[in-house]
Amino acid sequence: MSIHEECGVFGIFSKHPQNVAAVCYYGLYALQHRGQESCGMVVNDRGVFSSHKDLGLVSEVFSPEVLSDFPEGSMAVGHVRYGTTGGSSRKNCQPIEVNHQKGKMALAHNGNLSNAAELRNRLELSGAIFHTTSDTETIAYIVTRERLSAPSIEEAVSLAMHTLEGAYSLCLMSSAKMIAVRDPYGFRPLCYGVLEDGTYIVASESCAITTVGGTVIRDLLPGEILVFTKDGILSRTEHCKTRPNRLCVFEYIYFARPDSVIDGISVHSARIQAGQILARQHPVSADVVVGVPDSGLDAALGYSQQSGIPYGIGLIKNKYIGRTFISPGQTQRQNSVKIKLSPVEAVVRGKNVVLVDDSIVRGTTSERLIRLLRDAGAARIHLRISAPPFLNPCYYGTDIDSREHLIATSMDPDGIARSIGADSLGFFPLDQLSALAGGHGYCSACFDGQYPTPIPSDTRKDRFEARLPL
Amino acid sequence: MSIHEECGVFGIFSKHPQNVAAVCYYGLYALQHRGQESCGMVVNDRGVFSSHKDLGLVSEVFSPEVLSDFPEGSMAVGHVRYGTTGGSSRKNCQPIEVNHQKGKMALAHNGNLSNAAELRNRLELSGAIFHTTSDTETIAYIVTRERLSAPSIEEAVSLAMHTLEGAYSLCLMSSAKMIAVRDPYGFRPLCYGVLEDGTYIVASESCAITTVGGTVIRDLLPGEILVFTKDGILSRTEHCKTRPNRLCVFEYIYFARPDSVIDGISVHSARIQAGQILARQHPVSADVVVGVPDSGLDAALGYSQQSGIPYGIGLIKNKYIGRTFISPGQTQRQNSVKIKLSPVEAVVRGKNVVLVDDSIVRGTTSERLIRLLRDAGAARIHLRISAPPFLNPCYYGTDIDSREHLIATSMDPDGIARSIGADSLGFFPLDQLSALAGGHGYCSACFDGQYPTPIPSDTRKDRFEARLPL
Amino acid sequence: MSIHEECGVFGIFSKHPQNVAAVCYYGLYALQHRGQESCGMVVNDRGVFSSHKDLGLVSEVFSPEVLSDFPEGSMAVGHVRYGTTGGSSRKNCQPIEVNHQKGKMALAHNGNLSNAAELRNRLELSGAIFHTTSDTETIAYIVTRERLSAPSIEEAVSLAMHTLEGAYSLCLMSSAKMIAVRDPYGFRPLCYGVLEDGTYIVASESCAITTVGGTVIRDLLPGEILVFTKDGILSRTEHCKTRPNRLCVFEYIYFARPDSVIDGISVHSARIQAGQILARQHPVSADVVVGVPDSGLDAALGYSQQSGIPYGIGLIKNKYIGRTFISPGQTQRQNSVKIKLSPVEAVVRGKNVVLVDDSIVRGTTSERLIRLLRDAGAARIHLRISAPPFLNPCYYGTDIDSREHLIATSMDPDGIARSIGADSLGFFPLDQLSALAGGHGYCSACFDGQYPTPIPSDTRKDRFEARLPL
Amino acid sequence: MSIHEECGVFGIFSKHPQNVAAVCYYGLYALQHRGQESCGMVVNDRGVFSSHKDLGLVSEVFSPEVLSDFPEGSMAVGHVRYGTTGGSSRKNCQPIEVNHQKGKMALAHNGNLSNAAELRNRLELSGAIFHTTSDTETIAYIVTRERLSAPSIEEAVSLAMHTLEGAYSLCLMSSAKMIAVRDPYGFRPLCYGVLEDGTYIVASESCAITTVGGTVIRDLLPGEILVFTKDGILSRTEHCKTRPNRLCVFEYIYFARPDSVIDGISVHSARIQAGQILARQHPVSADVVVGVPDSGLDAALGYSQQSGIPYGIGLIKNKYIGRTFISPGQTQRQNSVKIKLSPVEAVVRGKNVVLVDDSIVRGTTSERLIRLLRDAGAARIHLRISAPPFLNPCYYGTDIDSREHLIATSMDPDGIARSIGADSLGFFPLDQLSALAGGHGYCSACFDGQYPTPIPSDTRKDRFEARLPL
Repeated sequence: MSIHEECGVFGIFSKHPQNVAAVCYYGLYALQHRGQESCGMVVNDRGVFSSHKDLGLVSEVFSPEVLSDFPEGSMAVGHVRYGTTGGSSRKNCQPIEVNHQKGKMALAHNGNLSNAAELRNRLELSGAIFHTTSDTETIAYIVTRERLSAPSIEEAVSLAMHTLEGAYSLCLMSSAKMIAVRDPYGFRPLCYGVLEDGTYIVASESCAITTVGGTVIRDLLPGEILVFTKDGILSRTEHCKTRPNRLCVFEYIYFARPDSVIDGISVHSARIQAGQILARQHPVSADVVVGVPDSGLDAALGYSQQSGIPYGIGLIKNKYIGRTFISPGQTQRQNSVKIKLSPVEAVVRGKNVVLVDDSIVRGTTSERLIRLLRDAGAARIHLRISAPPFLNPCYYGTDIDSREHLIATSMDPDGIARSIGADSLGFFPLDQLSALAGGHGYCSACFDGQYPTPIPSDTRKDRFEARLPL
Repeated sequence: MSIHEECGVFGIFSKHPQNVAAVCYYGLYALQHRGQESCGMVVNDRGVFSSHKDLGLVSEVFSPEVLSDFPEGSMAVGHVRYGTTGGSSRKNCQPIEVNHQKGKMALAHNGNLSNAAELRNRLELSGAIFHTTSDTETIAYIVTRERLSAPSIEEAVSLAMHTLEGAYSLCLMSSAKMIAVRDPYGFRPLCYGVLEDGTYIVASESCAITTVGGTVIRDLLPGEILVFTKDGILSRTEHCKTRPNRLCVFEYIYFARPDSVIDGISVHSARIQAGQILARQHPVSADVVVGVPDSGLDAALGYSQQSGIPYGIGLIKNKYIGRTFISPGQTQRQNSVKIKLSPVEAVVRGKNVVLVDDSIVRGTTSERLIRLLRDAGAARIHLRISAPPFLNPCYYGTDIDSREHLIATSMDPDGIARSIGADSLGFFPLDQLSALAGGHGYCSACFDGQYPTPIPSDTRKDRFEARLPL
Repeated sequence: MSIHEECGVFGIFSKHPQNVAAVCYYGLYALQHRGQESCGMVVNDRGVFSSHKDLGLVSEVFSPEVLSDFPEGSMAVGHVRYGTTGGSSRKNCQPIEVNHQKGKMALAHNGNLSNAAELRNRLELSGAIFHTTSDTETIAYIVTRERLSAPSIEEAVSLAMHTLEGAYSLCLMSSAKMIAVRDPYGFRPLCYGVLEDGTYIVASESCAITTVGGTVIRDLLPGEILVFTKDGILSRTEHCKTRPNRLCVFEYIYFARPDSVIDGISVHSARIQAGQILARQHPVSADVVVGVPDSGLDAALGYSQQSGIPYGIGLIKNKYIGRTFISPGQTQRQNSVKIKLSPVEAVVRGKNVVLVDDSIVRGTTSERLIRLLRDAGAARIHLRISAPPFLNPCYYGTDIDSREHLIATSMDPDGIARSIGADSLGFFPLDQLSALAGGHGYCSACFDGQYPTPIPSDTRKDRFEARLPL
Repeated sequence: MSIHEECGVFGIFSKHPQNVAAVCYYGLYALQHRGQESCGMVVNDRGVFSSHKDLGLVSEVFSPEVLSDFPEGSMAVGHVRYGTTGGSSRKNCQPIEVNHQKGKMALAHNGNLSNAAELRNRLELSGAIFHTTSDTETIAYIVTRERLSAPSIEEAVSLAMHTLEGAYSLCLMSSAKMIAVRDPYGFRPLCYGVLEDGTYIVASESCAITTVGGTVIRDLLPGEILVFTKDGILSRTEHCKTRPNRLCVFEYIYFARPDSVIDGISVHSARIQAGQILARQHPVSADVVVGVPDSGLDAALGYSQQSGIPYGIGLIKNKYIGRTFISPGQTQRQNSVKIKLSPVEAVVRGKNVVLVDDSIVRGTTSERLIRLLRDAGAARIHLRISAPPFLNPCYYGTDIDSREHLIATSMDPDGIARSIGADSLGFFPLDQLSALAGGHGYCSACFDGQYPTPIPSDTRKDRFEARLPL
């Protein structure tokens, strides 16, 4: 629960002016799980950009007044960003908007560059100044510098891709064009679709396309550049197949919504399968399989299907807990997990329970959950995790806790089980991750340390700063 | 989805001053599902009342600043209230606070009086003025008038109960005492428990007691008056057994949280059983059973258990949809159900689906859900409802749509199925409701018209005004 | 500066529906100086009342959204209330709205009853409950109780006036009538006027009538009841001349706006005259006369005219200081008077200054002001106060500091001058107050202790609680 | 009233950490009249910058929570900016913060570059991207580019000044230094002072220094660079005397606060003198001189002193009118001037009035004011304006209405008088402006078209877009 995705992007390209802000708003709602810190939207009305960005959820930032202030337009780009707090981070809200020598650009980005520090240094040496601390501004600089001599924005993007290293799924907009880009490794998902009236949609996940009533066409290929213009869609593939496919496997396990399909694989099905593999790898005799809402439910059902142990709805999530939940009172802190999750005694009392969750970071959340179930009368609790143990930082856009806080770096599964009070503990087997990804390449560096790109020698502190798990 | 509970109440009584506001805040969070329009809290610090009430969710009304402004105290009473909108309704927020000849009183109420109009008229004739349109003010008047001659507040409450008719679960507080009352029919739930330090908790549902770390002692008996004082708890039972038990059966089906236990019956278990009964009553050949989140999930699992048809997680609820969700753009309105619920294609495509929901009101929501599943590729859709058809208004605190909007008043199940596009439709059998209530008496007047009390001849418009279903 | 008026009232009565909320909004803006804690408005649209009330300034409470939510109507009643802070006082916002046996009433009140405690006790003994701590609710009760047997609302008002003692300027509204009432002493001002289209306006001060584009007709007579109906205006005078005129003389000195005319006397002219009298009574040789903005400016000009000493604009008020001004940092507290008022060195450096202010309460504000002028180079500072010394509490709606904090109760003028650092100090002579009031009767009990009514033996603490001066 | 100053800047440099945010907050309060659209502050705590910026007044943007979130620090830079509305302008809030190759910089700017468009174009050609539309970002770029090779930030500033043309009073901050800069013409004021503990203050106007309890040391020389470091203050004068002094004369007439002293001249005294000159130039026989609050009061007093006609306080300004004032209702629009200003009938009825205001832009406000006074009974109204007629746009930071809306471009004074209903009209004589500026050079291009710098051939639309006068 303390693993964070960095972002989600959304774009819309229509041939006629319409309420693109409304469509974008719905799309961002559907991508909200990819980032809850801030969100933003830029609408393009015949070359005039109108924007609104702020800290907060989509429902908070886009009030009826704000939405009705947007003009009609033919394009919009939107973004959701994940979650630290603090007044000064408003400037990191996206999409980023810049004016450059050839015009305007709005840019929304999901991912992290692995050579960001080096690129930034080179830019600063040539006189660049930075308003934000995000990689997105670096990308904007490099694209606009290429644009000084490149004949078109898409050519500038393609040239820039020779310099950018790491994870970037982009949706950007000039006065007249919208461009979607997925990095050659394909670290982060990106797909596009179409509405009934021919309007094109670009989104980090397919669930956003279906939510706005569209039909998914396909995922972008790793390395592909899609250019949306009045004349249609142009696909540029010069960067495709220059690198191996390395989709983040944790998208299937945790980040993505179960109703999304990524690179041809249903997220729901991948999780069901993860549960089935877990059941085969770590069988146990028990009375009921309980998933930790929301992301552990599918894997729990898969475990139940494979093992024949009945599926139970044994934990209830308080659906009113929002970003704003606070813990008043020092002595009340331990209550906070009770506020968020409640056990159903009728399901667990006197039972041997298989508890399925998606990950263990520091172990504290798991420990509290197990205590909660024991207080509700569970006899034995067998914890099954639908991912391998976290052992390494991610340089491609996932905010994993610092290595010294990762419980799996200092204990083996039995030690962890004792530490958190579980009767047994089983992780998803590293060597079967390929089954989740349906055969295509994937990145599992956070589990196995096999980084597809060179990694920065001077790890910037701010990306790996410790974050408190729940 | 357009059936609303009117309220939830919460009370805390401690022998020493402590941060009762924090405990009450957690408790109201756990009861939020019983009312999302407004909430409030009154803290009693040695006879000085501090209060805060407003429209909005608990998380919105009780900001850190507001919570930290409350003093420590030995008692608090809190309330959540359900959801119409409109500036003028702020005055109906609870708990109500009044000053009377013998002191102060704060009062939180769940339910509706069936003789409210008559009582109000009598009070007005004797010079009473009303600031609100809620029954709670009527109850406050009657209790305080009895208090003029009664030797104690609990005696005044007992005397008032001879006059009050209908549903009332109350938690009230004078300078020195907290009193919990459940009406003689026991229409609405009310229970109490205790924290480790001996602090007593009163709550509409047991989930609020466990959430704050307490142990449930028991439900109040219908008609019971519990008086919490420095010297302990006094139970007065003179009104017990004067009327038959008539707990609202819809508490089991929809209102209450599945982790609550009401009058000895686990809500979760009642719903599992409802699904099992449905499967026996309305069997069908299908590939998967899908529940409508959140309240249809348990019944769906019960249906699956009984029928042997696999349980599937085929609908995903967007957990970021709050009270503030808006539908910008006329042509987008039909999208709103898509924003809230998304089908998982991998679960339903090409499948014959048993869809389990808790109720049908106007039929429009069911119709949209069915269309959503068909668009996602479902072959056949068999709708099963874990309640009988709604046919009558409720006078005891449930906000059911007006009779002319209830689809079941004008069509039989087959007609409804055709109207909403289902391949088949089955309701929970009226004659088996007793199975849910575990043998004790219950009220099912909204289904069968058998009202336990006389009903008002002149139905007040404002209680039965039409409300739009989702 | 720590003397507070309790309230201002405003009413509008039109023969046809119109945007009465907008007119009321403008009127309340013009009366804002009479109360900055809270404000409210009730619009009457053919018997349906819509209201909005909250803590805050008119500009804060009545946002464009709130105003546009009001329907058109034929009547509205509004209120501004003065300023303590605290969450719980929202319930004391006015106008008060009640439902009673004969219908609805909205009531706005300026003043304080001197027999409030006694009346409240009598009402409570007969079963009344109170939601607020304001006298307004007491008045509402008495009027509505009389209404039970009285044939009309105006008859009920007249009957109630036999019971009410003290200060009350009222504007109230039933379904079909608006009624304006001024108590028989005429403690607080109340006048009415007419717009070009025949719409009638009632207001605490004439400035509100001219602000909304109306023509002032006249002040209400002390004791007069004006009834506005579809058929015209009815004046009832049965309570007139039953008591001597006792207009609060401090309305001329401080409370009212200089562009208002009260009981035939221009407030501006009264203040000019106060300055002239001060100059005759306490002459001094000096270079410049400087008034303390805003209320001391007129008296300073009068002093200058009489004495021949040039008038100077030597203190500038920061016009952006609002209710929300905060003083961050402990050591910064002494700066707050500098933030609010700045000396103009070019006017005061090396000069002997006559400084004219309207009152001294605790003396701390005067002391800081004098230090401010000395720091700016003033040679000698002669303080002249356009009111006599405060020595007594007020029971009629003025919030004067508690007696032990009033500096004049413990020192003579020379002692005060030494204490606050003035070179000399002169107060307005008590025996010439009649000159300000233009010959009609007035109340000066806060200066001389001559209360026109019996005063409560058991002074309620909350009315005289200490308030910090600036 | 429709002439806007662009900004005010404030800086604080202390040798030890303290609550610099609180001091800056007070200083910005004192400069609020120079800009009401937005404000911001950056605090420097040992090289770590914390900032908060937003649309709104100082009192709105800096809530107690926001202020208390700032750490202690040794430096802070603050800014107020004037007032258009619109969501997208949040990005133009200042101080601007940038990261560059040599570190961080925060920059606050008052003024406008006259070669901004040219500089921006040159920068874009070299690959610069712009996040804002303000000149401030251009200055930041040029300074940081010079910094790439310059040995210090102050050297970079000095080098940049060879490129920058136009008006710029700057306060900027690096990790270790604060730098104040005034352009060689000295278009905009800038001064510095010291607190008792040796902390240095930089401010657009001296009133901000005295408000925070400091002593003014002196104005910066036109062209001067002041460098504040741990070792003291360094003054660099290499750009001094490279250009003639051209202080904006309208600072004396309207922009600055009367308690400020600019380039040795008291603003109050300059206005008194303006009134005296007006009285000699445009004498008239009348009964009373009335100033339009707030900026016309001093000149009115000067007119009175010179002419011997008594000074009167004949217009009252509603002090509660804020940025948020709205005009509900179409037919009410003409009331808005009445809401803001009210005539005192006792002063003007039957009188011949000299009305003194600071400027006429479109003439509509003057027309309404004159009608207001006539409605209040004024016999004759002689309007005297303490500035010459506006005829030209300003390229140095004053937002004057577009030329086609300036009434003086199409009519002579007699024509204007007839158009707005005045009995006579007199402007301040152009040839006596030097008397106001006390002999030093000044810019009066808006009156006479004598621009000190080359002016842009391609006038950017957004700077001269029409703005509605009140």
